[in-house]
Amino acid sequence: MFPYPQLQQFTQNIFLAIGLSEADAILATNVLLSADLRGIDSHGIARLSGYVRLWEAGRINATPNIKIVHETPSTAVVDGDRGLGLVVGPKAMEIIIQKAKQVGTGWVSVKNSNHFGIAGYHAMMALPHDMIGLAMTNASPLVAPTFSVERLLGTNPIAVAIPAKDQPPFVADLATTTAANGKLEILQRKGLDAPIGWIQDAAGNNSTNTHELKNGGALLPLGGEHGSHKGYALGAVVDIFSAVLSGANYGPWVPPFVSFLPLPANPVGEGIGHFFGAMRVDAFRPADEFKQHMDNWIKTFRSAKPKAGQDAVLIPGDPEREMTTRRLESGIPLLDPVIKDLETLGQRFGLKL
Amino acid sequence: MFPYPQLQQFTQNIFLAIGLSEADAILATNVLLSADLRGIDSHGIARLSGYVRLWEAGRINATPNIKIVHETPSTAVVDGDRGLGLVVGPKAMEIIIQKAKQVGTGWVSVKNSNHFGIAGYHAMMALPHDMIGLAMTNASPLVAPTFSVERLLGTNPIAVAIPAKDQPPFVADLATTTAANGKLEILQRKGLDAPIGWIQDAAGNNSTNTHELKNGGALLPLGGEHGSHKGYALGAVVDIFSAVLSGANYGPWVPPFVSFLPLPANPVGEGIGHFFGAMRVDAFRPADEFKQHMDNWIKTFRSAKPKAGQDAVLIPGDPEREMTTRRLESGIPLLDPVIKDLETLGQRFGLKL
Repeated sequence: MFPYPQLQQFTQNIFLAIGLSEADAILATNVLLSADLRGIDSHGIARLSGYVRLWEAGRINATPNIKIVHETPSTAVVDGDRGLGLVVGPKAMEIIIQKAKQVGTGWVSVKNSNHFGIAGYHAMMALPHDMIGLAMTNASPLVAPTFSVERLLGTNPIAVAIPAKDQPPFVADLATTTAANGKLEILQRKGLDAPIGWIQDAAGNNSTNTHELKNGGALLPLGGEHGSHKGYALGAVVDIFSAVLSGANYGPWVPPFVSFLPLPANPVGEGIGHFFGAMRVDAFRPADEFKQHMDNWIKTFRSAKPKAGQDAVLIPGDPEREMTTRRLESGIPLLDPVIKDLETLGQRFGLKL
Repeated sequence: MFPYPQLQQFTQNIFLAIGLSEADAILATNVLLSADLRGIDSHGIARLSGYVRLWEAGRINATPNIKIVHETPSTAVVDGDRGLGLVVGPKAMEIIIQKAKQVGTGWVSVKNSNHFGIAGYHAMMALPHDMIGLAMTNASPLVAPTFSVERLLGTNPIAVAIPAKDQPPFVADLATTTAANGKLEILQRKGLDAPIGWIQDAAGNNSTNTHELKNGGALLPLGGEHGSHKGYALGAVVDIFSAVLSGANYGPWVPPFVSFLPLPANPVGEGIGHFFGAMRVDAFRPADEFKQHMDNWIKTFRSAKPKAGQDAVLIPGDPEREMTTRRLESGIPLLDPVIKDLETLGQRFGLKL
């Protein structure tokens, strides 16, 4: 178990070492480690060395000039200048929170960015402003559309955060696949098989091999046998909102997270893309009235009768919030390969984990 | 096979007979029958007598005063005054298309409405304006959240329509369940079993009985065994955006479509709720540039290599568009029980099918 402040200090020092400003290093650390706190181990500190390798490969700009390149009262397109998505994302959210204050809602499509950690962090930035937050991002192509043997979409997550009054907020954060790639990485680290329905092989048949993607296999869209066209449609919407609206790369042109894979030839845009939204609750009805009804919504669902063998019906965000409390108290567990990877990374910069 | 104009005339006359204005009768007919044209037989003319029974029960106002009750430059809440959702929906879409012209995007949450036909129709209203359209609605509780034996959500569809240039538009329209209730109704009319994964029984076990909902069973959220928490989260977002934002009924309080079921006691809002969005494409980048990239996106996905046994990878909206062409040409097939139901309905008003 690693105490959160220890991982925080280490991560911050790594980001400083690759040239981020102090403010950006603090921000990027908070965003990245929010994944570890929320129990989404695949998207947290386990990826720190991956971000550093992208920086080494010249694909991440440590001191980006993040700017609005087009806007209307309720919209913007932001150029991330090849910055860390961990930094670009929150700055884009800040822009639309200001727009929502002015005209009720704000919406931004971001180009020329990199991976932004967990979508939920960005969506949740809206909550203290009594706003609903939305966040989505495209990602490198690992997912085969329905009927396809080719990989054309990323795991393209959607997050929605909705404030309540006395109840904790509703926070949904979901990949538009049966399982996020990070879940596969965890099975790989543990040496386990994947359940049927997560993966297909190069010919499009079901597979349980977590390394199938290296043989031309693909992740499957949310929905499985009778409904994968729905997950495909949702992942496609995320891709289009994030990249076709902004001018980022889409579909098979989205750059890979791993630095050892080449960038796709003939790019159709710049970097990867995100899409964020912020809606002021009181642009619809008085905030207090809305939040009282959200409390009622949450209490109604949480008190529904559970199936035999289940303790309770959960509200999206419940498990992650409980995990955060537990991990802030007792520390964050890291798998051995992750610890070794971080130690090696630290040595390069003369930093101790 | 029934020629489209014949069904159109009949439906319009029924709507006139229950007191709609001529303009509203034409509009409601176009919305309702767009389902039959697009091959979503469950949501079209098969439901006409259901709407009439709601009107008879005093739950639908044939001459509603549809009005904005709250607004900001980019948002509105609309009170549907118990009108047909088939009429309220398009009027709400018109309001936000105007808002999008002014400030880039428009968003409306609607209360005090009724069922609005297929979500796709409303989303597609944005297309001629070079806007992206979004439409969602809540519906009466037939779906059990993950781990629940109680039904707390409707099939809560999400539709997204995105314009292209020379290619036809991208139109996704999906219930947030494994299968929409309408698909179940079709199996019932045909006397067939449901596949595993669509339905659970009153204790939460898998069932193939299409009549299981009458015994306390429930439809299942999109995602199946490993992912139903994702469909649950999406359906919940639709419920909250449609009803908690607007002041409509949510969760277990959403009124049933069938008039023989009583209205839920102690309602938490008015009628059912919808949520619509319109985003001007050129609020992000020049419309022509966007639409050229959409063409490239569509062509790339459509030309992906299909699995053995599949002709081609489809774009959301492809099957429905091809169906529309075919049915406008050769007519619309109706099942015998639907024909009988329409004939009985016609007799009541002295109208021939």
